[in-house]
Amino acid sequence: MRQKLYDIIFEADTKAGKIFDIVLIILILFSVTIVMLESLPGRPKQFYNVLSVLEWGVTYAFLLEYIVRLWVVRQPLRYAISFFGIIDLLAIIPSFLGLFLVGTHMLVVLRSLRLLRVFRVLKLTRYINEASNLWKALVASRNKIGVFLFTVLILVIILGTLMYIIESGSDSGFTSIPISIYWAVVTLTTVGYGDIAPVTALGQFLAGLVMIMGYSIIAVPTGIVTSELTRVSKLTTTQVCPSCLKEGHDKDAEHCKFCGTKLND
Amino acid sequence: MRQKLYDIIFEADTKAGKIFDIVLIILILFSVTIVMLESLPGRPKQFYNVLSVLEWGVTYAFLLEYIVRLWVVRQPLRYAISFFGIIDLLAIIPSFLGLFLVGTHMLVVLRSLRLLRVFRVLKLTRYINEASNLWKALVASRNKIGVFLFTVLILVIILGTLMYIIESGSDSGFTSIPISIYWAVVTLTTVGYGDIAPVTALGQFLAGLVMIMGYSIIAVPTGIVTSELTRVSKLTTTQVCPSCLKEGHDKDAEHCKFCGTKLND
Amino acid sequence: MRQKLYDIIFEADTKAGKIFDIVLIILILFSVTIVMLESLPGRPKQFYNVLSVLEWGVTYAFLLEYIVRLWVVRQPLRYAISFFGIIDLLAIIPSFLGLFLVGTHMLVVLRSLRLLRVFRVLKLTRYINEASNLWKALVASRNKIGVFLFTVLILVIILGTLMYIIESGSDSGFTSIPISIYWAVVTLTTVGYGDIAPVTALGQFLAGLVMIMGYSIIAVPTGIVTSELTRVSKLTTTQVCPSCLKEGHDKDAEHCKFCGTKLND
Amino acid sequence: MRQKLYDIIFEADTKAGKIFDIVLIILILFSVTIVMLESLPGRPKQFYNVLSVLEWGVTYAFLLEYIVRLWVVRQPLRYAISFFGIIDLLAIIPSFLGLFLVGTHMLVVLRSLRLLRVFRVLKLTRYINEASNLWKALVASRNKIGVFLFTVLILVIILGTLMYIIESGSDSGFTSIPISIYWAVVTLTTVGYGDIAPVTALGQFLAGLVMIMGYSIIAVPTGIVTSELTRVSKLTTTQVCPSCLKEGHDKDAEHCKFCGTKLND
Repeated sequence: MRQKLYDIIFEADTKAGKIFDIVLIILILFSVTIVMLESLPGRPKQFYNVLSVLEWGVTYAFLLEYIVRLWVVRQPLRYAISFFGIIDLLAIIPSFLGLFLVGTHMLVVLRSLRLLRVFRVLKLTRYINEASNLWKALVASRNKIGVFLFTVLILVIILGTLMYIIESGSDSGFTSIPISIYWAVVTLTTVGYGDIAPVTALGQFLAGLVMIMGYSIIAVPTGIVTSELTRVSKLTTTQVCPSCLKEGHDKDAEHCKFCGTKLND
Repeated sequence: MRQKLYDIIFEADTKAGKIFDIVLIILILFSVTIVMLESLPGRPKQFYNVLSVLEWGVTYAFLLEYIVRLWVVRQPLRYAISFFGIIDLLAIIPSFLGLFLVGTHMLVVLRSLRLLRVFRVLKLTRYINEASNLWKALVASRNKIGVFLFTVLILVIILGTLMYIIESGSDSGFTSIPISIYWAVVTLTTVGYGDIAPVTALGQFLAGLVMIMGYSIIAVPTGIVTSELTRVSKLTTTQVCPSCLKEGHDKDAEHCKFCGTKLND
Repeated sequence: MRQKLYDIIFEADTKAGKIFDIVLIILILFSVTIVMLESLPGRPKQFYNVLSVLEWGVTYAFLLEYIVRLWVVRQPLRYAISFFGIIDLLAIIPSFLGLFLVGTHMLVVLRSLRLLRVFRVLKLTRYINEASNLWKALVASRNKIGVFLFTVLILVIILGTLMYIIESGSDSGFTSIPISIYWAVVTLTTVGYGDIAPVTALGQFLAGLVMIMGYSIIAVPTGIVTSELTRVSKLTTTQVCPSCLKEGHDKDAEHCKFCGTKLND
Repeated sequence: MRQKLYDIIFEADTKAGKIFDIVLIILILFSVTIVMLESLPGRPKQFYNVLSVLEWGVTYAFLLEYIVRLWVVRQPLRYAISFFGIIDLLAIIPSFLGLFLVGTHMLVVLRSLRLLRVFRVLKLTRYINEASNLWKALVASRNKIGVFLFTVLILVIILGTLMYIIESGSDSGFTSIPISIYWAVVTLTTVGYGDIAPVTALGQFLAGLVMIMGYSIIAVPTGIVTSELTRVSKLTTTQVCPSCLKEGHDKDAEHCKFCGTKLND
């Protein structure tokens, strides 16, 4: 019985385990929705009362889950002090603390940590082949992406400092180097809030260069991921034809496409 | 005669059917243009009078089309209560209702539903090979795109909540968690309205991370669609194996990769 | 002599022809720079005097070029009434008209038409292999890009009308359907000015969907162009090995990679 | 000893050389962080005192490095007047100049030049295969990117001038052609600050076209880099022909494609 519950709660191989994970992710998203709705200002008191009742329902469900988890694992203490054990506990405590404490803002911070529980369920997606291929492509290109991000970092520091010096005379919001680097990030990534924008001719000229730079180098991460995804999805087997010893056969090939000999499985 | 009209109105295989579809799409876009122009405030009365005359022309054309459609289908009632049957009816009624009702705003809503009629004609594009290939690529990658959209959803919830907590002290528009998630979407997709923007140093640092994240992960949908399009457009020969009748052989294949029979040139 | 001048001025095959084109493009850009600088408000009078002298220099150079062009072509009248003939004339006339007319604004419009002369020189780039490949890829994918642009057009009309209806009550700038469609274009293309932004909860939710949509479907044009460019740049010769009759040889191959026979040129 | 120090300081082949480069990059970034923090306005005096002490530590470290560099190179003078020699010197002088001069703003400019020292260490990344492949892909596509940037330049000039003429009547910030070109860059690259935005119907229509143009042609640099990266990362074997010693053979090649000799397995 304990082994069965363990498989359901901690694994996602069985059908029951998958259903449990899906129910859990729904509960987490439901709980997160409640936290969101509570943050909305200016609603009638009944609105918050209903949310409170739903919140206690979710809290007791998480409490029950936590007790069952403690019971089914072999080393309860080791689970309790593990990363996800603490996250699971933090999903329950804030609601009870709210009975004694009034300053609810700090508790919102703690309750929002429930979001981290979603990562627990993300193992579910690992079984979806598509997510796995995407993940493989990202992992395979992590070095290239690292080099790209390092280059972007150097670029925004240099560009931000330049803009700080150029725009320092005018009253356009470039008040310090960090804020100018923030502007460089906003511009290079083509977000463009407009809360800080150059007003001098030289500043606008440099800003234009930064924009075209950002517009062009977005091609680099795209190129990296695309060429990896193309490579990953193009997997041919490493099978060798037993007769002519040629490689390059497709996954669904049964006979060598060069000499017609039957391929070994 | 009825069969001929049916082929023209409901199908797009014949030349007459294609012409009918093109005329219909022009009428729909013309009618939509009238709705648009009517929404412009502060024009002289004559302007609206001309629009009104044109509007009645389109309405009678749609009425005629509706009657013909009812006549040529085998089961008129089944057509009348189908999705497109109701849409077709809704394209006519609002103009006549406008004679009795004064509150025109609700009628604009109804008349704008004419836009949905465009979907009726989109079957035309299905015959264009290009659209078909694009569609195949998107359908083939729907699982990967789903995984991507789920990840983006989780990301904006977590990032939005974090920003709500970080910026809650300052007066920068992060008044609730939903609005902070809205900000996270605006920033991650590199839209960047600037109506809500962080003002604290920590908030701006996190915003910078969100932007670089959004700038980088745009590579993922791009990579997915590109690798699919590359795969779809990659030519395999249309050769059919003379023995097992299977297709999909590479250009350099000499033997059928499924049964080993020598392929004809 | 006339034939020689014709080759220099109208063709770009010879070295002199290329130099002429480069000089011409520099003159055009120089002339455009003068138009730009003249539009700057609030400079001292000397500044405009210097610009005026330079402007007359460029005008006389263009006049000389126009006369030579008229002289070297076989059918001067046919050239004079051709598209580029009129553009060439329009590059000269406005400066002389400025002596008699005072309303300079209209003349700026005419003088800015000099920019169209740049297209005359763009034939130069046709000889650069890279531009030619890019152009081929774009032409080859023009149908796919057309389908994409049509879909974007339908999308922004539907989304703009929806937002007009949703936001019509509030005071957020969605004053007519055309302006709402303008907002939809601004948002879907991830530009995001922020001059018009939704303020209702439903409007912000729909705006979020539009943004994620725009963020995702940018993958489509990218995928189209990339897969075309990959295909175009992957051109192998259509050479067939005279011995084993196999294809797929690289451009720099001298011997068949399958059987070692020398390939014909 | 001098040779050993030379290998450590100027090369990155040995382990000690790599460690030196990493320490140097950390020192540079640390020094840059100090410059950034000093630019923050409104902190207590102690904050700047601590920064001053750290600044002097970095300055003396750079001074020591400069002296060692002068000692280990064969031609000290040639190093001293080289680009990086001057940059290395400029990393030290401003701090000492600060003792005599009061106008600190100019010194910030000089001290920020320390950022250029980062390029010295970028040779480290050259040894990372990933960066090398990225670089190769960018270099290989520099002609295509040049053609693309030239086209963008022509586009923004034409579009900016058009918008200047269209919006010149209204009070929407299009006060001169250069500023209108700046707007065209902001819009075409999908940055979209919103500090300058069209208000006339025609201006908004043209702006919409510019946005869709920018949204579509971002596909071009992406396609260029992606197809290059795909080509570069496509594995050819490292086989060397035993006869002509040439490399670059495909995986399925049996004979050297250059001289026809049978390749070893």
